[in-house]
Amino acid sequence: MQDVPTLVAQAREGRPRAVARLISLVEGASPQLREVMAALAPLTGNAYVVGLTGSPGVGKSTSTSALVSAYRRAGKRVGVLAVDPSSPFSGGALLGDRVRMSEHASDPGVYIRSMATRGHLGGLAWAAPQAIRVLDAAGCDVVLVETVGVGQSEVEIASQADTSVVLLAPGMGDGIQAAKAGILEIGDVYVVNKADRDGADATARELNHMLGLGESRAPGDWRPPIVKTVAARGEGIDEVVEALEKHRAWMEEHGVLSERRVARASREVETIAVTALRERIGDLRGDRRLGALAERIVSGDLDPYRAADELVEGLTHGS
Amino acid sequence: MQDVPTLVAQAREGRPRAVARLISLVEGASPQLREVMAALAPLTGNAYVVGLTGSPGVGKSTSTSALVSAYRRAGKRVGVLAVDPSSPFSGGALLGDRVRMSEHASDPGVYIRSMATRGHLGGLAWAAPQAIRVLDAAGCDVVLVETVGVGQSEVEIASQADTSVVLLAPGMGDGIQAAKAGILEIGDVYVVNKADRDGADATARELNHMLGLGESRAPGDWRPPIVKTVAARGEGIDEVVEALEKHRAWMEEHGVLSERRVARASREVETIAVTALRERIGDLRGDRRLGALAERIVSGDLDPYRAADELVEGLTHGS
Repeated sequence: MQDVPTLVAQAREGRPRAVARLISLVEGASPQLREVMAALAPLTGNAYVVGLTGSPGVGKSTSTSALVSAYRRAGKRVGVLAVDPSSPFSGGALLGDRVRMSEHASDPGVYIRSMATRGHLGGLAWAAPQAIRVLDAAGCDVVLVETVGVGQSEVEIASQADTSVVLLAPGMGDGIQAAKAGILEIGDVYVVNKADRDGADATARELNHMLGLGESRAPGDWRPPIVKTVAARGEGIDEVVEALEKHRAWMEEHGVLSERRVARASREVETIAVTALRERIGDLRGDRRLGALAERIVSGDLDPYRAADELVEGLTHGS
Repeated sequence: MQDVPTLVAQAREGRPRAVARLISLVEGASPQLREVMAALAPLTGNAYVVGLTGSPGVGKSTSTSALVSAYRRAGKRVGVLAVDPSSPFSGGALLGDRVRMSEHASDPGVYIRSMATRGHLGGLAWAAPQAIRVLDAAGCDVVLVETVGVGQSEVEIASQADTSVVLLAPGMGDGIQAAKAGILEIGDVYVVNKADRDGADATARELNHMLGLGESRAPGDWRPPIVKTVAARGEGIDEVVEALEKHRAWMEEHGVLSERRVARASREVETIAVTALRERIGDLRGDRRLGALAERIVSGDLDPYRAADELVEGLTHGS
């Protein structure tokens, strides 16, 4: 195996295998993880991170694919991180099914990475920002993060992009569903996909109403646009890119971009720190201390708060 | 407002408002939270906790409702915790829509509680077990926890029940979708709902194959049954209850029930401890230490791991 500096140099040159290998090292919490992250740090900060989220069936993957094409036409290098379990980008040969390969799979200017929604030490909140960091350092101009808008962790990831795109599709109560899933308020750009279907205008109107877009705003405030698309035919995708670029320009003008990135980095550090502390707590399983507390809880002898106090005390004052 | 001992006594008597109030205190991380949990501890351990999960559209809420009816006919007190954002149980008057009220809303032997999937301090992993604890202490014989099988936190909650029920419905690739969402391996009982539709037998066969149910097992091992239901007409629901009771009896016979409960209590304590530590980290925002670290990360001057080291050091060795 190549050493980390070699891998990083190769990733910078655009070699997909080096990029893939780095993400694997990062995802798998390998012993080289810290070395990788230290080597990447000075190379990051270039990529524009766009989150795409929406309920299953709104056409997230098709929209992501169409956006990749649009950015490729503009000569940009694009990374895709798919954390949507229903996405065709989420690849591999899970249980032997052959997942449809993307048209972009053979394009050297596109990196596509899927991420399982479970099994990571600190979960998606821990793994996704690090994979984004690799794609950023590898020279991607744009990183598209596709998450299904159902589930707490997934919505959190989508809300941590530079720009968050919320996708909807015509259909009764779709806006209500989105609102329930908590994805309505995170959008910087809204897309009504499948706009050739009946009800697209009604969905856009409903959305407009729910978001209060008709109301007046302070000058300088961002007013999220609603773009209608038919992603499967590429219709409206240029308008989405235009909306993204406008939002990015607005963020830069108002200092919002760096604010968001500082907030994202704060959350990243918090998650890593919490994961490290969680590991220390996990280590307590070895000496049966946690198990003994849990048994007392099950027997009704102790409540979980007092048990947690005991754990935290042991941890923060040396055990 | 009543004091905590009065609320607990009223909840034990079966007063729904006291139960609701206690859950609110617990969910909202109120100042009385610790007092509530201490008062509840000796009263818990009676409820049989059943998780129900599956993709949107498989009929989780209808199945939950049918199970409530079945347990009510058997004279059991039933609690329902709905953490599925698409569930009609998830109630309230969100954005003015009128959510269909359950037929059980007026039954004093049934407590129904919905839980938002976001906004909690420690998330669902923190809030759900505590709400279950209240329902248990209030004298529920059975607590049904309905979660959508998409999303990391949701699947985790479902996997922490005494018995986990995974629901599917006939449809192409449904099993594959379930496998991707990571919910296949957590089932103790599988339900193929909407079994009057074409493809129900194929779905059951596919599931049987994927789970390796045809293979031989060691004597005494649990072999998850696959039950076909039409929950909307109540068909097959008695068989589901029977499968649940069999699983419970098997767990009791093999010591698995107490093992699972100890494991659940361990995770509960861990989550509370981690939430407490996360709060301490959050407190560091006040003195701008976290923000300063985050700014250095954004500028490429520092990687998030070294930043996290600094945070954890400050935390565990007195800051």
